[in-house]
Amino acid sequence: MIRFENDYTEGAHERILKRLWETNEEQAPGYGVDSYCEKAKAYIRKACDLEHADIHFLVGGTQTNTTIIASILRPHQGAVAAITGHIAVHETGAIETTGHKVLTLPSDDGKIRADQVKEMYDAHWDDVTHEHMVQPGLVYISHPTENGTTYSKAELEALSKTCRECGLPLVLDGARLGYGLVSKGSDLSLADIASLCDVFYIGGTKIGALCGEAVVITNDALKKDFRYFIKQRGGLLAKGRLLGIQFETLFENGLYFEISSHAVEMAMMIREAFREKGFSFRYDSPTNQQFPILPNAMLSELGKKYSFSFWEKFDSEHSVVRFCTSWATKKENVEMLIEDIKALA
Amino acid sequence: MIRFENDYTEGAHERILKRLWETNEEQAPGYGVDSYCEKAKAYIRKACDLEHADIHFLVGGTQTNTTIIASILRPHQGAVAAITGHIAVHETGAIETTGHKVLTLPSDDGKIRADQVKEMYDAHWDDVTHEHMVQPGLVYISHPTENGTTYSKAELEALSKTCRECGLPLVLDGARLGYGLVSKGSDLSLADIASLCDVFYIGGTKIGALCGEAVVITNDALKKDFRYFIKQRGGLLAKGRLLGIQFETLFENGLYFEISSHAVEMAMMIREAFREKGFSFRYDSPTNQQFPILPNAMLSELGKKYSFSFWEKFDSEHSVVRFCTSWATKKENVEMLIEDIKALA
Amino acid sequence: MIRFENDYTEGAHERILKRLWETNEEQAPGYGVDSYCEKAKAYIRKACDLEHADIHFLVGGTQTNTTIIASILRPHQGAVAAITGHIAVHETGAIETTGHKVLTLPSDDGKIRADQVKEMYDAHWDDVTHEHMVQPGLVYISHPTENGTTYSKAELEALSKTCRECGLPLVLDGARLGYGLVSKGSDLSLADIASLCDVFYIGGTKIGALCGEAVVITNDALKKDFRYFIKQRGGLLAKGRLLGIQFETLFENGLYFEISSHAVEMAMMIREAFREKGFSFRYDSPTNQQFPILPNAMLSELGKKYSFSFWEKFDSEHSVVRFCTSWATKKENVEMLIEDIKALA
Amino acid sequence: MIRFENDYTEGAHERILKRLWETNEEQAPGYGVDSYCEKAKAYIRKACDLEHADIHFLVGGTQTNTTIIASILRPHQGAVAAITGHIAVHETGAIETTGHKVLTLPSDDGKIRADQVKEMYDAHWDDVTHEHMVQPGLVYISHPTENGTTYSKAELEALSKTCRECGLPLVLDGARLGYGLVSKGSDLSLADIASLCDVFYIGGTKIGALCGEAVVITNDALKKDFRYFIKQRGGLLAKGRLLGIQFETLFENGLYFEISSHAVEMAMMIREAFREKGFSFRYDSPTNQQFPILPNAMLSELGKKYSFSFWEKFDSEHSVVRFCTSWATKKENVEMLIEDIKALA
Repeated sequence: MIRFENDYTEGAHERILKRLWETNEEQAPGYGVDSYCEKAKAYIRKACDLEHADIHFLVGGTQTNTTIIASILRPHQGAVAAITGHIAVHETGAIETTGHKVLTLPSDDGKIRADQVKEMYDAHWDDVTHEHMVQPGLVYISHPTENGTTYSKAELEALSKTCRECGLPLVLDGARLGYGLVSKGSDLSLADIASLCDVFYIGGTKIGALCGEAVVITNDALKKDFRYFIKQRGGLLAKGRLLGIQFETLFENGLYFEISSHAVEMAMMIREAFREKGFSFRYDSPTNQQFPILPNAMLSELGKKYSFSFWEKFDSEHSVVRFCTSWATKKENVEMLIEDIKALA
Repeated sequence: MIRFENDYTEGAHERILKRLWETNEEQAPGYGVDSYCEKAKAYIRKACDLEHADIHFLVGGTQTNTTIIASILRPHQGAVAAITGHIAVHETGAIETTGHKVLTLPSDDGKIRADQVKEMYDAHWDDVTHEHMVQPGLVYISHPTENGTTYSKAELEALSKTCRECGLPLVLDGARLGYGLVSKGSDLSLADIASLCDVFYIGGTKIGALCGEAVVITNDALKKDFRYFIKQRGGLLAKGRLLGIQFETLFENGLYFEISSHAVEMAMMIREAFREKGFSFRYDSPTNQQFPILPNAMLSELGKKYSFSFWEKFDSEHSVVRFCTSWATKKENVEMLIEDIKALA
Repeated sequence: MIRFENDYTEGAHERILKRLWETNEEQAPGYGVDSYCEKAKAYIRKACDLEHADIHFLVGGTQTNTTIIASILRPHQGAVAAITGHIAVHETGAIETTGHKVLTLPSDDGKIRADQVKEMYDAHWDDVTHEHMVQPGLVYISHPTENGTTYSKAELEALSKTCRECGLPLVLDGARLGYGLVSKGSDLSLADIASLCDVFYIGGTKIGALCGEAVVITNDALKKDFRYFIKQRGGLLAKGRLLGIQFETLFENGLYFEISSHAVEMAMMIREAFREKGFSFRYDSPTNQQFPILPNAMLSELGKKYSFSFWEKFDSEHSVVRFCTSWATKKENVEMLIEDIKALA
Repeated sequence: MIRFENDYTEGAHERILKRLWETNEEQAPGYGVDSYCEKAKAYIRKACDLEHADIHFLVGGTQTNTTIIASILRPHQGAVAAITGHIAVHETGAIETTGHKVLTLPSDDGKIRADQVKEMYDAHWDDVTHEHMVQPGLVYISHPTENGTTYSKAELEALSKTCRECGLPLVLDGARLGYGLVSKGSDLSLADIASLCDVFYIGGTKIGALCGEAVVITNDALKKDFRYFIKQRGGLLAKGRLLGIQFETLFENGLYFEISSHAVEMAMMIREAFREKGFSFRYDSPTNQQFPILPNAMLSELGKKYSFSFWEKFDSEHSVVRFCTSWATKKENVEMLIEDIKALA
């Protein structure tokens, strides 16, 4: 079985494993104040072109989102997100365990727009009984989204402007950030994101690391006491070096972008194969996740050799499925898949 | 600087790193349902001599304690613990974030006794206004404790009996479990613990792993829906294999016990050196943490070459400090430390 | 200004105030274990035709919903409700403060159907990644709804049957229960509700009391330790007699139903007046809340003499407004309003 | 049975009931924005000699403490309190449900001192691992305390000074505030409290009202969005007038102080009777709660005619009990009790 079901089917990039070997016997202080973490932070600040950013390393996405959001909101506030947002749907109510509601906006492709945020904000404050409702307290977006789509620089600028006018910190979930940054579907750079968002994170788990997400706090007002939150939410690894070493490796010489590019290249090849065969797509994704709409019969046929995810029913005879590539996807497997797509009846 | 400040200064046991290398390119399903996790669970069930136990792998101690406790208690209940317990002191209020109070019992050495639990339980139910107070809902202990001390089989049997009579699940924090199991200071086996506790965890982070704790649920009533809790509390790693591979390695051929023994042996050598020099100890610890009471002047002298932890002020001229060994402690470093202790003025 | 803006503009029914006077100097034990509470409970059990029901008195609706829901759900579960439900919209995220998500179902009139619940339940359990999502844990409905609409006996039977098949407790918010019970738009009796729901509450605040809601727990499994929850959520009044005396008065001789009937009668007169004038209604409400769709110009005209609530914009020239009657509504005021409606241009 | 078991055995002061009668049919807007609330706020501001104070009315003590504390703390912070404090012991973990730990200080009489606060604060910040511990976030005291004791002006000034130096808001629980203010055991005035505390509340339930506590926020930084918190925590009464009318009555002409004086006078008579008979007291209380230490045999003797509370075991033959007076205590009952005390064997 060749797996395209998600972007975390393999271990870590070999350079990371190698570095773990090399440094394994060195003694380091615990809880993320070791020299590896320090170096990784310096590389990331440079990549963000933002010297004053605070960087922290956490373990996984749900933990990271929860920690960030819990650190920002007051108890009567909620997180504005697309109805399809990861925090709204796929984190078993982790945000709610911190006492906060996720305030959802409609979205067909995983993105939300500045005018939607403004409209929700105005609707809240214009209502004379607004004290009976959860107050919008921050805006959460994903880039790329859970549907593989991306924000353009213009779109993110508009969102950022609105958020700043409304006093709502803008939080960006970058679980797959690399795949968005290298995609031809978005003109956003890491420095753009750093300047437009208040907090965001750079996903490692899905892009070459065994685990790990790098939180970047750019807004000074949100930096205070963040390490307490990491500890409280279970993210302060005793062996913080594990995260430091991985991010040092990913950002020392651009490895993060290099392997992201490979994944997107592989995804574009798969997209092209489905497209040539006449299939359409549920979302127009320029990143590593592709969502072709396939006849149900074809699912079991392809499923004999390849694993992929069922996404949703399209109509009585078609389904939307998801094929993911990653930094680890082997080109020969993609080529084999393409041949098999071509050969489909 | 030679580090004895804690038991997580190095990376992982080399056999673990080797196994990560070997399996790195294999594709595995995510979220802990891969074959490595399955094998690790089988080994642990066997080591616990308990075929029906549910095993889950989480990342770190605070997360594990929080997840276990949140899964057991109803909202009006609290966790009974020693006033020195990790959940009471050193988890930044993680238990409280789940809405629960830690109900503390006095303890001088980190341990609590069956009669203390019974007394608190009775005091609650005998009070006519008990509905105005947090109801004891479970009992939490650490073995070894945060002070290096251990429970004997008789003590744990007494606690377990009382807990069962009171309907209070007994939860054991085994962040350093291996060091307790191999210690001559305790006659408790892993199978004993599995039969006497309702939930416990086997610490990996401090005993050979990069990260990871293995939760063992022995009480059928507490098994339901536990994976939801792991996800909700941020512990469901996308690359669950990382944890499975590590615990498979630790439990396949007794590595866990072997490396635990090394650490305790090293600690006993250090203890003996301080003892011979005439120093006494804050706690009588038969495990990998030693708490000698030293003259303050000596702290800076030893501190030039070795790092260790300040624990607490003893009197105006003495301090309690902590020296930790671990699976990774080098014998030559211990021998050098012993020589330096001998040479102290 | 004559107020029709809500159903809590006056104090309490005079019989309640009289009883407070008469009993004022008697000494009673605190926290709801006095003789007034006991009598009130006995009357309510009889009215529900359910001898084994547990009855508790709380202060207000948000507190009551929060306390009930927090007492039922485990941390990974959510409350299924109409998207318009009070807990979903108008309680400032009170449910989320207890750690739980409100899982919303679409609804145009405030009601949800058995098949919607079944569909959401099946969708959850059919999804292979259901552990990544909040598990449905109970179903919350309002009767009458926030839109004045009511459930029929057949509808509630269907909901109850589905809930029991799915293992989901059915919770009914009866903030305006009296107005639903006496309405010609519903054939549901109090005994029907008691037999079909697991927990519900009988609203006092909006029907004759100064404050107070009576919780009725019919499902034995949900009764345990409920008083702890009341205390924890701030609902255990020191002078519990205040609530006991009020509910004793309301249920001793059918006062609750008598004054509910008056309110609904007044509302039907207002409805008829708008209807005769040719206006239509946003919801088909047979209870004390009426939602006519009026030309915007008319709002300011009527607003000179009467207060009512703006509900929502209907189109560029029309608005939906809400007129409420209550147990305290004076017939002469309704007649005056009707004359003024007739006289509208 | 004549009740001295607590200070909430009767209904309300008759002037309050009278005012409820008189205003009952008037129509008022809901949720605390009516004219009664406005007048009550004005009277209280005047009594506090603090024109810029924000005043809010809540229902009961647990709710009030929870709402205040939840509005102030960030998630990683805790409330510093005496180990005997109401929030630490008698609120079923209500503070913990908001995610916060109560950080307790030892106390034998219910009071805490400025130097204890400073010591805890310094201990936290001096610890290099402070991020692993709950950060002190506010200081909570009761005046009078749960043991009937009171703070002097000098003591409160010292606490206030320390709190301000440490950046810790000082919160005062005034459930029995009137009894403290009129006591000869304290030189603190309401204006002193208003100038020294950041938030406090004036208890109504135990001093003449059916229910109700008036929160006074003097620190501008803590005023924002407080009504959201009241609603979220279930304290925003639909018929807010119920609270407004009561506090208007209590503060219009000094009734609050007048009836508080009566209660303390009655308590002093009881104290004197026990003292003359040779009994000593567990706490030196100059307020309405008295804690004589009595031989166990005497408990049942007095208990035939009077109800009072068992407080704690003193030794094998003596118990501490509590006698409470209140605004409603009848002088003839006190005189009868005194005679019976005199007649004790």
